[in-house]
Amino acid sequence: MNKPKIGIINATGYTGVELARLLCRHPGVELTSVTGRSSAGKKLGEVFPHLADLELTIETGLSEVDLAFSAMPHKESAGEVIPLIKQETRVVDISADFRLKDAAGYPAWYDFSHPAPELLKQAVYGLPELHRKEIAGAQLVANPGCYPTGAILALAPAVKAGIIEPEIIIDSKTGLSGAGRSLSLGTHYAEANEDSSAYALGGHRHLAEIIQELSRLRPEPAPAITFVPHLVPMTRGILTTGYASLAAGGIPIDRKGTEELLQLYRDFYRDEPFVRVVAVPPHTKHTWGANICFIHPTIDLRTGRLVVVSALDNLVKGAAGQAIQNMNLMLGLAEKTGLEAPAVYP
Amino acid sequence: MNKPKIGIINATGYTGVELARLLCRHPGVELTSVTGRSSAGKKLGEVFPHLADLELTIETGLSEVDLAFSAMPHKESAGEVIPLIKQETRVVDISADFRLKDAAGYPAWYDFSHPAPELLKQAVYGLPELHRKEIAGAQLVANPGCYPTGAILALAPAVKAGIIEPEIIIDSKTGLSGAGRSLSLGTHYAEANEDSSAYALGGHRHLAEIIQELSRLRPEPAPAITFVPHLVPMTRGILTTGYASLAAGGIPIDRKGTEELLQLYRDFYRDEPFVRVVAVPPHTKHTWGANICFIHPTIDLRTGRLVVVSALDNLVKGAAGQAIQNMNLMLGLAEKTGLEAPAVYP
Amino acid sequence: MNKPKIGIINATGYTGVELARLLCRHPGVELTSVTGRSSAGKKLGEVFPHLADLELTIETGLSEVDLAFSAMPHKESAGEVIPLIKQETRVVDISADFRLKDAAGYPAWYDFSHPAPELLKQAVYGLPELHRKEIAGAQLVANPGCYPTGAILALAPAVKAGIIEPEIIIDSKTGLSGAGRSLSLGTHYAEANEDSSAYALGGHRHLAEIIQELSRLRPEPAPAITFVPHLVPMTRGILTTGYASLAAGGIPIDRKGTEELLQLYRDFYRDEPFVRVVAVPPHTKHTWGANICFIHPTIDLRTGRLVVVSALDNLVKGAAGQAIQNMNLMLGLAEKTGLEAPAVYP
Amino acid sequence: MNKPKIGIINATGYTGVELARLLCRHPGVELTSVTGRSSAGKKLGEVFPHLADLELTIETGLSEVDLAFSAMPHKESAGEVIPLIKQETRVVDISADFRLKDAAGYPAWYDFSHPAPELLKQAVYGLPELHRKEIAGAQLVANPGCYPTGAILALAPAVKAGIIEPEIIIDSKTGLSGAGRSLSLGTHYAEANEDSSAYALGGHRHLAEIIQELSRLRPEPAPAITFVPHLVPMTRGILTTGYASLAAGGIPIDRKGTEELLQLYRDFYRDEPFVRVVAVPPHTKHTWGANICFIHPTIDLRTGRLVVVSALDNLVKGAAGQAIQNMNLMLGLAEKTGLEAPAVYP
Repeated sequence: MNKPKIGIINATGYTGVELARLLCRHPGVELTSVTGRSSAGKKLGEVFPHLADLELTIETGLSEVDLAFSAMPHKESAGEVIPLIKQETRVVDISADFRLKDAAGYPAWYDFSHPAPELLKQAVYGLPELHRKEIAGAQLVANPGCYPTGAILALAPAVKAGIIEPEIIIDSKTGLSGAGRSLSLGTHYAEANEDSSAYALGGHRHLAEIIQELSRLRPEPAPAITFVPHLVPMTRGILTTGYASLAAGGIPIDRKGTEELLQLYRDFYRDEPFVRVVAVPPHTKHTWGANICFIHPTIDLRTGRLVVVSALDNLVKGAAGQAIQNMNLMLGLAEKTGLEAPAVYP
Repeated sequence: MNKPKIGIINATGYTGVELARLLCRHPGVELTSVTGRSSAGKKLGEVFPHLADLELTIETGLSEVDLAFSAMPHKESAGEVIPLIKQETRVVDISADFRLKDAAGYPAWYDFSHPAPELLKQAVYGLPELHRKEIAGAQLVANPGCYPTGAILALAPAVKAGIIEPEIIIDSKTGLSGAGRSLSLGTHYAEANEDSSAYALGGHRHLAEIIQELSRLRPEPAPAITFVPHLVPMTRGILTTGYASLAAGGIPIDRKGTEELLQLYRDFYRDEPFVRVVAVPPHTKHTWGANICFIHPTIDLRTGRLVVVSALDNLVKGAAGQAIQNMNLMLGLAEKTGLEAPAVYP
Repeated sequence: MNKPKIGIINATGYTGVELARLLCRHPGVELTSVTGRSSAGKKLGEVFPHLADLELTIETGLSEVDLAFSAMPHKESAGEVIPLIKQETRVVDISADFRLKDAAGYPAWYDFSHPAPELLKQAVYGLPELHRKEIAGAQLVANPGCYPTGAILALAPAVKAGIIEPEIIIDSKTGLSGAGRSLSLGTHYAEANEDSSAYALGGHRHLAEIIQELSRLRPEPAPAITFVPHLVPMTRGILTTGYASLAAGGIPIDRKGTEELLQLYRDFYRDEPFVRVVAVPPHTKHTWGANICFIHPTIDLRTGRLVVVSALDNLVKGAAGQAIQNMNLMLGLAEKTGLEAPAVYP
Repeated sequence: MNKPKIGIINATGYTGVELARLLCRHPGVELTSVTGRSSAGKKLGEVFPHLADLELTIETGLSEVDLAFSAMPHKESAGEVIPLIKQETRVVDISADFRLKDAAGYPAWYDFSHPAPELLKQAVYGLPELHRKEIAGAQLVANPGCYPTGAILALAPAVKAGIIEPEIIIDSKTGLSGAGRSLSLGTHYAEANEDSSAYALGGHRHLAEIIQELSRLRPEPAPAITFVPHLVPMTRGILTTGYASLAAGGIPIDRKGTEELLQLYRDFYRDEPFVRVVAVPPHTKHTWGANICFIHPTIDLRTGRLVVVSALDNLVKGAAGQAIQNMNLMLGLAEKTGLEAPAVYP
């Protein structure tokens, strides 16, 4: 009867409001507190008409809860999370503030010195497919970035098995909700519609956690990763294409090797509720609103390269859905609870 | 424990697959049989990867069920429905084949003679907001068209109350999923993207049921309705704008009248679970994937006209969701069962 | 050899940059000066890569030119235009600041008192199809709004001929470039994509000029116009649907009347280079980038109403293209000069 | 006065109609004959309202012309082109039928035996930036594919200069007009909108000509290219991202090397009218409707890799525009004639 009480810090961004959408129908918890900066005092359903049934009022500070999500931007999130951790509230932080194990990564990639480096060791990187057990016992889970979720899931089986060379190219295509709800010329409709472009060629921040996690799967030789994100004109969805040469002596470069590769991926993700290895290239559209990642690995037989494509909804498996998956694990609930709705298609 | 068994005839069109999406998570029924023409023998989840968890195989003919949805095109649907009715299977027909009370409407609007005119009287027009009680006891429910749902809900309170003149303009804007999954040049991406156009200026078939239902609310004077549908470049959603002069002696043409009008609509839809009267113009985006119709009535004070705007998802409240709402009523289930998920936004 | 020198005030908004695109290829004039607020000092082609061939630098103030376009926002534009007029530079003002003949319209519709009401009489409303001769001799042309261009052209033949009742409904659907380059939540990609909505139900400012111009065509009885603009998810294009009852004793309400109506429109626009009366409903896509307005008039035979649909590109015939058409007339150039490129399709 | 007469075989596909759009305003030639299969006998402007000013009637067979474009699909095009070549009409073939130098490529990549292998040597691959001189004197020019244009232009300077290793990844993102005007489920609006996907992972046909042309620039060591095309939801545009490791001893892997690389590209394309090397990542939107390819080369300093991004409009520089550029060269006209209009933005 006494469901755990859940709070969302900054419920008025796209990740926050997506958490609210998913939590309001979650049978195992109760969403009791949401905060926001600009809209404090209003009903959540006033600001977001699709949540009109929710009776929650946006607060300036979080009420007491059993577990909190922080959907604050990076750097600001740590300031919200640290006091909660000290008072022993469990937290899923959706920002990048606790994803990196090495505190030196913060000045290098995020332009700030980490205010609580001791928590970085304690924090668990919240990709359940790699860290399920630690997540269950964690007080602080650092929810992965949207790009890293698709990229790491696409490459983990190959890296872990040692079947590819460490030289890896990751080319991602994202919809515009990934850029958040803050206004910018690049996300202005007339600019973004009918446009595709690459950005962050000098190194996107998410690369740090991609390197970290793939290195943990296989420390030597260290992966040499080029990651280039692209904006394409859709609202939701990330499609990631990964490329790497097959290592000599591993998977054979022929039709049989293609089958073997597919089997290796299927074995790796056997029993995973939210990863589906597929025999044809996936479509982001089939993930719209759902906590699912489709992965299609194959071999370019002409060149002997692994080509692997993953598709997910950046706001669900790439953010809010995965955060709830982590919450379920932390609270001892069935992992799929509240996350079973299929994608909305077409 | 013994949940009613449900079937879908033609599950491979957009309405059929949307029924499957909603039914697979419905706690009160069991989807046990789906049919399709081109893909018979395949798993539904093979054809539609977002439904990969569903174990159903597409059949050529329906297995025995307690209630069947027909998502066949008009004219063909009657051929499927009539035998089911004879064998006392309850049916929600999503085609137009049993919507018109007057058999003469079929040759006039749909170019065929109705094969079972006696069923037209028995069939109930499945707009729960107007016919809830009859639906509950019906063996055959004719699910409204997508345009009529938005148009009738937008105008019903005003027509019923007699506050407008019978000269009504209805201007609707629909996304392209309304045109179905069959290929045509008009729904070819490169043609439809970045395009808006009007069509069916000679009279869209859905006008027949709009006239029928609004006339039943207020037979005299008969409404004189112009209905023009437009295609706009989005996948889901219908926005309908209705216009009519306020009748003399009714609602006053001033700010107070605007409030009075809003209250009249709120009273009309009080306790309706799937209609929300709102004080600002609604957005189709807030209905994406959800069984909801937003309605905003106001007065053009310069001309003394009612202007009313409704927004819904053509595949949910405009088709599959409303069909399930009808099913819930027919089976004595709580009307909201399986239809409570909020829209996916943004 | 000495081509007239042309300037653009505020070349960095969408209308300004569209003027630059069209003028840079115009054989009869020379674009010599462009101003902008935020980007002064940069090359125009730096800010807008599609104009990289243009050698113009964005200035803070206009150099001496023979004719200037003001693409400033309303209220601010008058401040730029008045001094130019005083120094006898000819001006096409694309803002609303000189469109209304009645100075009282400015506080009522635009929330400011007009700083130079005496110029309102002198200014010519720049719709060449109605005011070609006055435009040719004008020093100051007020370029029509994007909505009014489509609405007035759609209704002018019917109003002028007196074949419709004065009760008129105008329902317009616009792409998002019409909202300009300034950022707002409503034009944020993730909000605007896959969304349609109505706005300005209390009365859009463009209504004032629609009433003014249609009244000038037929002062009595005064038209009673409801105008509702809608946002649909495309970059360019306005589709306008007009509705009015046919007046008794005019066009017959039958197939022959439909032909008669079409002929009346064809006669009205005979020899117009940028209006094309068509026998099927037009598509905004066929106007992309071109100075053209398609118009399709027909009769709803059930109700005896005129239904007329127009399509144009809001940035071309709805703004920059029409402004150049006006410039051509003012400079005695052939009206089509620089405006002959067909639309880019698909 | 006697302008060369030009014909288009199959003017009713997207490339054909784009040729007509560009040719109808071309000052140096006269479009005198267009053919089409389904719409023969109709005016071109009836089928394509944006070309309503064109007086051409669609014929079943080409009239006598000085130069013909074939916009037929591959395999069928050769059948049209061969007789023209025999009667000494000059031809720009936009299909793939004369692009490959090695006749064995046709059964391998296109599933047919080439009917005139002797013409393959005579045909010139129509990428003016690489083969300008041969094009000028050619009787038969094989216009490059849309993907190869963006990919070869992006990589040619690096390959030619020998600054990269031969292991190359090419990841392209295309709009849907690239799939043509023929209907398919994948280009059905409701399927393609809000979707991104990879396709042809087993090897896209365009890879053959990419390999051929890059190998000609530097035969040894032979390039090992993986090319993966992706569909993204826009009408026009191809964005291509190329990846390759910098060869040891060449460009230094530091900021200075980045400048050196940019300079190398600028030198390579110096004086090219339709290639623009840019210092920031390009946007496909800035190429809409224009014969331009933007290229941005840079170095991923972490891994020492070249990352190069190109953007073009698949129907212009990727097809019809480039074909006219080739025609200009063949006819001794200034290369930019008829191709100077800037992109339509936004």
